[in-house]
Order: sequence, then C-alpha cells, then structure tokens
Amino acid sequence: MKLPPEILGDILMDIPLDESVIVGPKIGEDFAAIILSSGEYLVIHSDPITGATKYIGWYSVIVPSNDVATSGAIPKWILVNIMAPSEDAAVVVLRDVVEYSKKLNISLIGGHTEITPGIDRPIVSSTSLGISRRIIKTSGAKVGDAVVITKGAGIEGTAIIANDFEELCLKKGISEDTLKSAKKMLWDISILKEAKIASKYAHSMHDATEGGLLGALLEISIASRKIIRITEEIPVREATREICEVLGLDPLKLISSGTLVFTVDKELADEVIDEINSAGIEAYQIGVVEGEGVGVVLDEEIIREYQGEELDKLFK
Amino acid sequence: MKLPPEILGDILMDIPLDESVIVGPKIGEDFAAIILSSGEYLVIHSDPITGATKYIGWYSVIVPSNDVATSGAIPKWILVNIMAPSEDAAVVVLRDVVEYSKKLNISLIGGHTEITPGIDRPIVSSTSLGISRRIIKTSGAKVGDAVVITKGAGIEGTAIIANDFEELCLKKGISEDTLKSAKKMLWDISILKEAKIASKYAHSMHDATEGGLLGALLEISIASRKIIRITEEIPVREATREICEVLGLDPLKLISSGTLVFTVDKELADEVIDEINSAGIEAYQIGVVEGEGVGVVLDEEIIREYQGEELDKLFK
Repeated sequence: MKLPPEILGDILMDIPLDESVIVGPKIGEDFAAIILSSGEYLVIHSDPITGATKYIGWYSVIVPSNDVATSGAIPKWILVNIMAPSEDAAVVVLRDVVEYSKKLNISLIGGHTEITPGIDRPIVSSTSLGISRRIIKTSGAKVGDAVVITKGAGIEGTAIIANDFEELCLKKGISEDTLKSAKKMLWDISILKEAKIASKYAHSMHDATEGGLLGALLEISIASRKIIRITEEIPVREATREICEVLGLDPLKLISSGTLVFTVDKELADEVIDEINSAGIEAYQIGVVEGEGVGVVLDEEIIREYQGEELDKLFK
Repeated sequence: MKLPPEILGDILMDIPLDESVIVGPKIGEDFAAIILSSGEYLVIHSDPITGATKYIGWYSVIVPSNDVATSGAIPKWILVNIMAPSEDAAVVVLRDVVEYSKKLNISLIGGHTEITPGIDRPIVSSTSLGISRRIIKTSGAKVGDAVVITKGAGIEGTAIIANDFEELCLKKGISEDTLKSAKKMLWDISILKEAKIASKYAHSMHDATEGGLLGALLEISIASRKIIRITEEIPVREATREICEVLGLDPLKLISSGTLVFTVDKELADEVIDEINSAGIEAYQIGVVEGEGVGVVLDEEIIREYQGEELDKLFK
C-alpha cells in the first residue's frame, strides 16, 4: 500500500535538488534523470518487490528496468538487494535475478543478499540504470499525435489472475487452455524491446501499470495537459477477454505492465508500428491527441479522474 | 545474516558484465563503478537496512553513501525504498531520510515508500551514487605508504552498544556520562568529510565496518597483497575504552563505520592529517605498508585471517 499522496507530497516538497537533477522525485514518477558532463542523461529507477510469492527474481529485474526504458534509455546495469527468510529462498531469487538479467543483457553490478529475520517471504529492492542522449517524458504528447499501444490491455493482470487465482478461475469455468495462455503472459510484461524502437520517434511514453491502460492514458493526458480521444476498438487478447468477462472485470482498468503506451507524430505512426511488429510484438494505433485540456474521451464519455485498479476487486 | 561465501561465489561467478563495468559484484565489494563516455566514473552502491530499530533514516542515508565515498567519489544522489509496518513508521523514516540527505548535501532523487504487510519493523533499501575522475580501490596500497585512520577504533560499535544495550551497561557500572558520549558517536559514523580530503592523496581507502579496524586493515592487506605493520598505539576514544573494558570486548575488532582507513605516500601523510584535523576530525598515522605478502603485524604477531566481530558476542 502506498503512502497517501497528501502526506508524501508534504514531505517531498521539502527536498532541495542538485542542479544536475533533470527529473526528480515526484508522486507517480517513472524514473529519475541526471544530466552528465557529456550532455547525456543517466536514468535511474528503484523499486521494491514485496507482494510477490512467485517469479520474484523476474519481477525484480523487469519492474525497475521497464521504468528506465520508458525514458528512452536502455537499461544496462542493475543492483539487487535480496532479503529472504531462508538461505534456500535467497538462492532461488538470486539465481533467477542472475538468469533474467543475463537474458535481458543487463549487467548485475552490485547488491546484497541476506537472510533477514522476521519476514515470511523474500523482499527485494532493485535499482536499474541506463544512459540516454534524449529523455522522453510522459508530459511530451503533442496535439495531432497518434496514440499507439503494444500487445493489448490487461497483460500483467491476466497473468497475475491466472497464477494467483487459478482455483477461482477453474471454479468459474475458465478452461485450462485459457489459463495456460494467460499464465504465459507473465513473460510479456517487459517493454524493453518496443521501448527501444518507439523511443526513436515518440513524444511521450508510459508503461501501463496500476490502473491499467486507461490509467496510463490519463497519466499522459494529465502530464501533457492534452485531451486524448480513443478512436479504435482497444485490442484485448482472447485470454484476457475471457477471464475479465467471467470475473466481471474491465480489462482497460486492469494492471498492464508490458503494454507500452506512446504518442508519436501521426505521419510516423505506421512506420513505428511496422518496426515494432517486425520485432515480433503487436502494436496498434488506438487514438489521437486531440487538443489542449485534460481527459480521455472513450465512447463519447470524457474521463478526467483515476478509475481505480480492477485487480483490487479480487483482494476484497 | 549474509549468504555463505561459497554459495554466493558460485552464483556470482556466472555473471557476464558489460565492458563499461570497471568494478563489479564481488564478495565484500564496497561499490560498483562504471566508466562514462566522459572518462569519469559513476560510482554506485546499494545497501539494505534490516536490523536497526532506531535511527533507521540516518543509517539509510549514510551507510551506502560511506561506501561510495571510499571510492573517492562524493555521494551526490540517493534513492530510498522504505517498507514499513505502518504509515506512522514510514513517515518517521522518510522524514529522517529527507533531513539527513539534506544535511549531507545529497539529492534524494527517487524511491518508494509503502506500508508492507508481514513485517514488524521498517526495512529500507537505499542506493547512493557519485561521480569521480579517479577511483581509489582497496587494492591500491603501496610499499612504503603510511597507514592513517580517522577518529579511532570501534566508533559505530560504541554507539550501538550504548543505544541498544543501555541497561546492561548501567548494570555493569558504566556511568551515564560515558553512555551519553558513547551514544553521540552515532553521528560520527559518516566518513564523507575525511574521504573527500583523503581521496586527493590516498592510494587505498576503506571504511571499517564489520570486523572493525583490524578487519579493515586485513582487507586492505589481502586486496593489495601487502603486509601492514602497526607501529603506533591505536587511538581508542575514552567511552569506547571504558565500555569495551567492562564488557570484555576488543575495540580493534568492534564494528567501526566512521573510521576511514587509508594508505598514502609517507611524505604526504602529515599534510593530509593536518588537512583532516583542520576539518575538525582526528586523524592518526598508525602504521606502515611494509612489504609484499598478506598480513597485519600487531605487537609482533602476524594476523592473516578474519578475527570476527566483537558485537556478535552481545547477541549470543
């Protein structure tokens, strides 16, 4: 559970920052950026993984690295602190961290692994870093831009539900096959490949985490102070659609790490979509940046406020 | 509790590193260093604080920053992930982190604060960063160097004992005045000021953490493959001496963050000691780097192996 924004805001207001800090601590920040003497940007993000019971090593590597990637930087280095209830649990997480950072071509340069008394599951905190010549901020959307997303809505949420609520799903009649496809979507939560391509063109980039695709679109709208209009049917994968229908969830508001959302000059949209498709990743234009203001226009309704996270309904 | 070195070593052996990584993950590493396109080094260190019940915010800022400083870099930026059992506990830690990073002129550029179920005390993981033109490694000691330390032996341990074992100390007849001086030594565990001065001259630098001053000297000896001879009486503050005598502890083997140990050309030793003194910090030459080999010569005895941490005796 995050700290209430009003408390956090008061404390964070009070922070003096070095002039090198181009992007500093903000509520909802995706990354911090420091300008180096070369004129390049050091992009860095730190995240704790405290709630996962499975795939902790994978989350520890990909979650902060996704955030670095939304800046346009390629995550190159990572430091991971693992606090585990037992030696065995520590070793499982550390081995996975080593494996996945290697797969993603990220150098594990430091960290610390310990057996920590008084915890019942591993807690991991990792810091990912990259360097970039250009920083893409959420706030950069321009009127006339095309709005493009990758993969579909609800990617991460679909995998979480299939992995953590399997019994409920089976009881509600969701097929084993659907669950199998859904579980595999855990490996789609990386946005590293598509962010690398999109960053050559994008004006604004964002990863759809809590609050899902709709939350991400709203964050781009608020940060850029631009109205976004959804003009196309939003792609939702078959497994996501089936699971959401049966459980009564809206896939557009379902946590969706793995769905990169970006805005790009409309003349370039087809080119970047083609390039992302060529890398084996689905990408779709779903709307346009329509004008000044704040809001996401969907089915003639204008949404101006955070609509919540559908996954929370399952934890009640 | 750290993971056994044989297990950790096996897993870490398997890590491919980007060519930019000048200092990578090693058991007992103090920091990681990456070479930037400008030729400068980015120095970074990450540490969890899991065992403290008081002054957690102070530890969270100073512990990783000390490690960055032993490289010769000035810690300039920090990211802090706070996981706390309650909102109140989270706010106490976060406010302290903001206060102490401000005092030390370190920009708090990111992190995350959350209420984490299933923990009984705050757990913090922080990452400190700095940039330097030159990296000073533990392995850089040269034959003929003077060995210099700041403050004295057992600095951090004295403060921990006074704060966490106050009743035991009073029962054993240690005076309130001694305990008061001892508790204040918690604010001496920063080596930032002296490391900034020493880094202009030093060949090797190290912070005396677990295993105390003797452990730090041995680590310099092993890393540099040089024999260190102690030629002077090692300075021990009055409060440390009294507490260690009464509790039967050896101050030379007592955890001593705050004690910077460095080696420097003997012609320059007086100059750097004067400069550190002028900054209000005690500094003393205690020995010399005598020749090739591994060992610390103390009272005609040669020590070649880790002698343990005295503080552990109180937890048995």
